[in-house]
Amino acid sequence: MKNFADALVRRIAELDNPTVIGLDPKLEYIPEDIKAYSEQLFPEEPTKATAKAIWIFNKEIIDQTCDVVPAIKLQYAYYEMYGVDALKSMLLTARYAQKQGMIVIADCKRNDIGSTATAYAEGILGKTELLLGESMEMSGFDACTVNAYLGIDGVQPFIDVAKREGKGLFCLVRTSNPSAGDFQDLELANGGKVYEAVAAKVNEWGKDLIGEEGFSSVGAVVGATWPEQAVALRKAMPNTFILVPGYGAQGAGADAAVAGFTADGKGGIVNSSRAIMTAWKKKDDIDAWNFGLAAREEALDMKEKLNAALKNRKYI
Amino acid sequence: MKNFADALVRRIAELDNPTVIGLDPKLEYIPEDIKAYSEQLFPEEPTKATAKAIWIFNKEIIDQTCDVVPAIKLQYAYYEMYGVDALKSMLLTARYAQKQGMIVIADCKRNDIGSTATAYAEGILGKTELLLGESMEMSGFDACTVNAYLGIDGVQPFIDVAKREGKGLFCLVRTSNPSAGDFQDLELANGGKVYEAVAAKVNEWGKDLIGEEGFSSVGAVVGATWPEQAVALRKAMPNTFILVPGYGAQGAGADAAVAGFTADGKGGIVNSSRAIMTAWKKKDDIDAWNFGLAAREEALDMKEKLNAALKNRKYI
Repeated sequence: MKNFADALVRRIAELDNPTVIGLDPKLEYIPEDIKAYSEQLFPEEPTKATAKAIWIFNKEIIDQTCDVVPAIKLQYAYYEMYGVDALKSMLLTARYAQKQGMIVIADCKRNDIGSTATAYAEGILGKTELLLGESMEMSGFDACTVNAYLGIDGVQPFIDVAKREGKGLFCLVRTSNPSAGDFQDLELANGGKVYEAVAAKVNEWGKDLIGEEGFSSVGAVVGATWPEQAVALRKAMPNTFILVPGYGAQGAGADAAVAGFTADGKGGIVNSSRAIMTAWKKKDDIDAWNFGLAAREEALDMKEKLNAALKNRKYI
Repeated sequence: MKNFADALVRRIAELDNPTVIGLDPKLEYIPEDIKAYSEQLFPEEPTKATAKAIWIFNKEIIDQTCDVVPAIKLQYAYYEMYGVDALKSMLLTARYAQKQGMIVIADCKRNDIGSTATAYAEGILGKTELLLGESMEMSGFDACTVNAYLGIDGVQPFIDVAKREGKGLFCLVRTSNPSAGDFQDLELANGGKVYEAVAAKVNEWGKDLIGEEGFSSVGAVVGATWPEQAVALRKAMPNTFILVPGYGAQGAGADAAVAGFTADGKGGIVNSSRAIMTAWKKKDDIDAWNFGLAAREEALDMKEKLNAALKNRKYI
């Protein structure tokens, strides 16, 4: 029986690298030459030209990092905003990364009730029944992010599909943004804060999907920008695998990013999007078609920093 | 300056009908003849056949209801699960409904931080800059639903686009599902519950977008299944337009569904999805190609029930 958390933990160990690359291909991140080439291919079709540039960009990043980085995270917003052709590039990217051995997480923060949550879970992680008697994997992601504000009704369908298909989910517990505290930090009458109540539930919901490596396929999102909270959350969710946004561009360093890892340096993966995608902009000597090398260097630098921080923990 | 809430309030008044039809076209809701016809059109392409059946179904419902119902709500989950071709059917449905005079709400419950929330807001309500110097409306919805768990960082981009484009948003305050209380009902140390804290913020966030009719384009989602809470929420959010799910299939009747309306019967719109889409299943004498008539009858019946409940308020 396949378990998502086991696969993730093992791939991180193999590559000795708890990094996930966020592929959020805003056009401003893509080198001009690639955009010009895509425009030449589809001179009359802006949506197709855009989708092509995104695909070329993503493929090169994957080709240059798949042997050193265990996973990628695809942010739906940056594909959806470019239209249906870009969504096709997103799905193509997911397939290609999996073929190169990467684990692929959909950052979609889906949330809805019962049957609608089931529709999302099947569409993103599972299978859909179509006409002509076909049953197909429509997206085939290995895991996705989920917002739990609607309670267990909205999360259980993802857990069910994850269990059946060996997939995973990450529930938002403490996000990395400045106003995360607007609701997440509200003090509860019974003690603790809202995000701690969410953490307690996530810990409970995950009990049934703990793999051989000791972590559950029901994971959590805990921002790197709140390291003290990450330390406390690790205690509250001892078997929860943590996806950590907020490293780099959002201001958190490596020490803060690994604050929620276990004492033996496991159970977490740190996302970097912008710094890796735009590493080529800092180089004068990199050819526009070799920008992936800059991404690789940046990823290796991040690996080194995270591993150094894990050897010498500042927050624990 | 166009204001979404004004347009919605006025269209509801014109048709004397505070109903929004939820078009969530699960294949089991679509008559067999339409599915067979779509399979004949695309005998080798299950995703295209499925997308075609969805479009035919949606178009007929719109044709038969656009003169009596002011708005439709499209639930992303039921298009996403059928793949990219079905998403095209969703966008085609949105365009078509708008041409027939309907207001179109995307039920996508998006949530993310800063620049990512901007990407969602521009993609769903605004405009995207593409290659070849093009700027396009990619989805062109009139409004969308938003989950506010990430705080104002995640909502402000939607407010900004709504203000600029005359669009609207509905923040989840109190959802209609059984486990809505898991987090939304937690008691806060300073008094009140989590959903009440969200309501207070939504009321505040909306102040800048109140139209001539007295309602803000920053609306709220308040489930019909909690009428006493809806009454209290109306007081806490006097200028907030409320989108009400949970009528019919989820168990709430007309009296409960209008509980959050103002004393003079305004400021709300009640969603019905399944009952309208599957009305044809209750009829023996309806031709599969006239199933829209059954939807129309059901919608007129709902209009009558809601207006009766508004004349004789049970909860206020």
